[in-house]
Amino acid sequence: MIAVDWGTSSFRAFRLRGETVIDRVETGEGILSAGDFPAVLRAAIAPWLVAGESRVLMSGMIGSRQGWVEAPYLPCPADAAGLAAALITVPFENALVRIVPGLTSHDAGGTPEVMRGEETQMIGAAAEGLICLPGSHAKWARVSNGRIEGFETYLSGEMFAALRSATILGRMMEDAPHDPQAFITGVQRAGDQGHLLHHLFGVRSLGLMGRLCAASSASYLSGLLIGTEIRAAMRHGENVTLLGSSTLCARYADAIAALGGTATIGPQDCAAAGLARIGRMNSWN
Amino acid sequence: MIAVDWGTSSFRAFRLRGETVIDRVETGEGILSAGDFPAVLRAAIAPWLVAGESRVLMSGMIGSRQGWVEAPYLPCPADAAGLAAALITVPFENALVRIVPGLTSHDAGGTPEVMRGEETQMIGAAAEGLICLPGSHAKWARVSNGRIEGFETYLSGEMFAALRSATILGRMMEDAPHDPQAFITGVQRAGDQGHLLHHLFGVRSLGLMGRLCAASSASYLSGLLIGTEIRAAMRHGENVTLLGSSTLCARYADAIAALGGTATIGPQDCAAAGLARIGRMNSWN
Repeated sequence: MIAVDWGTSSFRAFRLRGETVIDRVETGEGILSAGDFPAVLRAAIAPWLVAGESRVLMSGMIGSRQGWVEAPYLPCPADAAGLAAALITVPFENALVRIVPGLTSHDAGGTPEVMRGEETQMIGAAAEGLICLPGSHAKWARVSNGRIEGFETYLSGEMFAALRSATILGRMMEDAPHDPQAFITGVQRAGDQGHLLHHLFGVRSLGLMGRLCAASSASYLSGLLIGTEIRAAMRHGENVTLLGSSTLCARYADAIAALGGTATIGPQDCAAAGLARIGRMNSWN
Repeated sequence: MIAVDWGTSSFRAFRLRGETVIDRVETGEGILSAGDFPAVLRAAIAPWLVAGESRVLMSGMIGSRQGWVEAPYLPCPADAAGLAAALITVPFENALVRIVPGLTSHDAGGTPEVMRGEETQMIGAAAEGLICLPGSHAKWARVSNGRIEGFETYLSGEMFAALRSATILGRMMEDAPHDPQAFITGVQRAGDQGHLLHHLFGVRSLGLMGRLCAASSASYLSGLLIGTEIRAAMRHGENVTLLGSSTLCARYADAIAALGGTATIGPQDCAAAGLARIGRMNSWN
């Protein structure tokens, strides 16, 4: 089978034997830059089709409104079998090309939640309990017996970038390496009484008072945001499985420990394993 | 006496008889654009000096590090008499020119708070209890017997602008008039269980699901931010006195009512009255 993890800014294709990757192609042709989706796919996997592959399973933003075809969101709770039963087929030459749907969930207030691609990574990681996928839009999901029960999204990563690029807080910051001490101070500050919208002004007032230097303030701000997110998403004492870039996972693990939880960093690159698992459950008729 | 409210982007001078404004000059020469502070002041008030005025009291960012001279922050609690005793004198021809210091406070976690100019508006409004000055950096203060006990700053206004200009949420928004219904829905959503960083993603997911249109999403986002701020700053059932632009005060009043408080919109343009009151308490030696 061929597995394709096709996101906003990257394209990754894997030739699989069972769950083992025997060949791979990786390009920057995410859905925002790839104009002609069939042509990009053909260029990447043609040799494998010639070698006898005929099944292609894709996940990620390729199934969004901006992608090849919109695959409707499947409601939670959902597991690998449920996803496998809801694949969307797209016409493509002689191969069978299918797309894993995204998931939707509702929070306590009735606001819908959406994910696309992360569900496949979670299936691939086979993790249980509270799972966090850090990033621009961090996803926090609860998985029980392989079933994704529900999830919430936190805008922390994109908010960090916006605060840095477009506010007075960013104008006070110097580019500098990560400062672990300032980061944890921010995390702990977020855990104190008071609200994020208030704590954010502290980045400026601590700077004005000479208590936070320009080289450390980006790390402090990052700690405030990630600490606020963890405090909202994790119950005290919980274990969190982290899936994603090793740098970001290590940062989240530090913050989780500072807030009274424990973290397990999961396997890297779970998309291929997730696609293999979902693909095995589809009949490919 | 001459009162000058000199902020980041505006300059306003008032000739006073007691607390009554008998003449005024208003320009866009805030401290960011006014290069030569003495020259800007001279151009504005020269006729009044010729007519016999000799005392000038200024408040706002003119007393900041980027202003004419840095007036050290006075710690809370502070009242008009305390501010009057801490004026800074700047050399200026034959007139006595003084600057009201800003205030500093500490929140429960020990992070410093700062304001400059708002203390004078609060003194001018002579309001008691919980006072809110909405804006880019909204200030919430508690005043008791004319004494400003302490305050907190919320970055809601600047965060709205940053989220709108620099994130995926802004890219989904159309320019449109304020939508009061969407605004209150956002306020109430902020009052529900869950955290702002999570609710923000709802601006996108509600849009994706067709439950929030592009023309209403800026109002909904504004409601989320202002609702979160009020929920953090106001105890249920409290009365809040609002000082500031009438449009913004009306919006805050709607949100306060939706979250179970009551709002009183205070007098407009309190700076001159505050400067008059503080000025009367200074000996002008």
